[in-house]
Amino acid sequence: MFIIGERINGMFRSVAKAIQERDEAAIADLARRQVNAGAHALDLNTGPTEGDPAEVMAWLVRTVQDAVDVPLSLDSPKPPVIAAGLAAARGHCIINSTSGAKDRLDALLPLAAQYGAGLIALTIDERGIPRNADARAEIALTIVARTLEAGISPDLLYLDPIVLPVSAAQDQSSAALAAMPIFRSLCEPAPHLIVGLSNVSQGTTARPLINRTYLVMAMANGLDAAILDPNDSELMDAMRAASILLNQEIYAEGFLGTKAAV
Amino acid sequence: MFIIGERINGMFRSVAKAIQERDEAAIADLARRQVNAGAHALDLNTGPTEGDPAEVMAWLVRTVQDAVDVPLSLDSPKPPVIAAGLAAARGHCIINSTSGAKDRLDALLPLAAQYGAGLIALTIDERGIPRNADARAEIALTIVARTLEAGISPDLLYLDPIVLPVSAAQDQSSAALAAMPIFRSLCEPAPHLIVGLSNVSQGTTARPLINRTYLVMAMANGLDAAILDPNDSELMDAMRAASILLNQEIYAEGFLGTKAAV
Repeated sequence: MFIIGERINGMFRSVAKAIQERDEAAIADLARRQVNAGAHALDLNTGPTEGDPAEVMAWLVRTVQDAVDVPLSLDSPKPPVIAAGLAAARGHCIINSTSGAKDRLDALLPLAAQYGAGLIALTIDERGIPRNADARAEIALTIVARTLEAGISPDLLYLDPIVLPVSAAQDQSSAALAAMPIFRSLCEPAPHLIVGLSNVSQGTTARPLINRTYLVMAMANGLDAAILDPNDSELMDAMRAASILLNQEIYAEGFLGTKAAV
Repeated sequence: MFIIGERINGMFRSVAKAIQERDEAAIADLARRQVNAGAHALDLNTGPTEGDPAEVMAWLVRTVQDAVDVPLSLDSPKPPVIAAGLAAARGHCIINSTSGAKDRLDALLPLAAQYGAGLIALTIDERGIPRNADARAEIALTIVARTLEAGISPDLLYLDPIVLPVSAAQDQSSAALAAMPIFRSLCEPAPHLIVGLSNVSQGTTARPLINRTYLVMAMANGLDAAILDPNDSELMDAMRAASILLNQEIYAEGFLGTKAAV
């Protein structure tokens, strides 16, 4: 499993404050804590910032790459903000995110190709959120075709089947699960499968339980990447247990922390 | 999910003692506690008893059905012991278990047909434990064919893909998962899918975590029944969360106990 830490996001109040004050130590601390907890990459999202979001993204990139040496997921709805992050980054980046909409693909595929960046692609398009697995697969196929045309290897592509809050759209959690094996079959090598995990539990009364349950079910359906909170130790334990049960990680005695080893 | 409580099993020392002393109150208490925790049926296994196991099984059946009104899963490698349980039972029973071996099917299919009992069938046969999903499916097909020939409806059949301890046979946990969708496609109506859950975690240092993680992954692959410990509240919470995420149970605010609602 490829884990992208979700915590450096201006939607969190403490992060918004750190961004506003350009508090490098606070951002560096968040970066280190996530990497120490097992994140392989870090998502950077300026949130609704007061200043120029492109400038904020570039500052986030510089601050985080001075603290840790991992790929950065540049998370913005605005292509110029992503471009500013790519220009500021020394190492590998992942663009978060395109979709199947023509204008998004037109704007972001050239950037991905130019920088050799990974590309997270949500399986939505101009028509909105698809209602079932087949509609998701149809959009996924468009994205895969456009990615190949742009000369980008499918192993740089992370398809996101769109996970909605189960409290609001209960039938869509299983629709996203059902889409995953279809996505994997679309090309060779198969694209990666990713989810923005915390979405699924929004508005529920037991968010960590819903998050880790969905992560494990998605892994059973082929998920190999996720944007999540690596500092949720129960989530990470569940992920590790699933990796072992799927024979992706070697079982060893005492593989879990004492907290989980009940 | 159809939940069969696993606790009335002579392999547990306290149950062996209760059986030896014919302690009806202790067995009745175990029965009530499991049903109160959400078990829809109860597994009865005499374990390696000193007395006549057929007599012990009949006593277990009488004792449990005087305490609770749920189907009973008669769990024994010996067809005469299962026959004694069936004869003693007032209500619906499930035979646990047959396999794909000819002598097992010859002995147990007529009993299932005679009593209208459910039938748990392990996908092993004379050749031993299959090494992958396809070999499991081959045995499952034999079992399904023999079940249909015996005039037993597939909705009384519970196919078990054989879950081995992940600590001993790590590649077999995922092989069992991969077999599940194949089993479901073998006939119409589809057979049920069942696992004896606790097997998977034998010899591991984090049994409850491994159990609930595997249960959730199996549910994502179509599992609709399990023999498990319903008094493991974290396991039951994970199961409920998975049922909701699979749109099998309606989400409602505060659906989980306070312990899990963090």
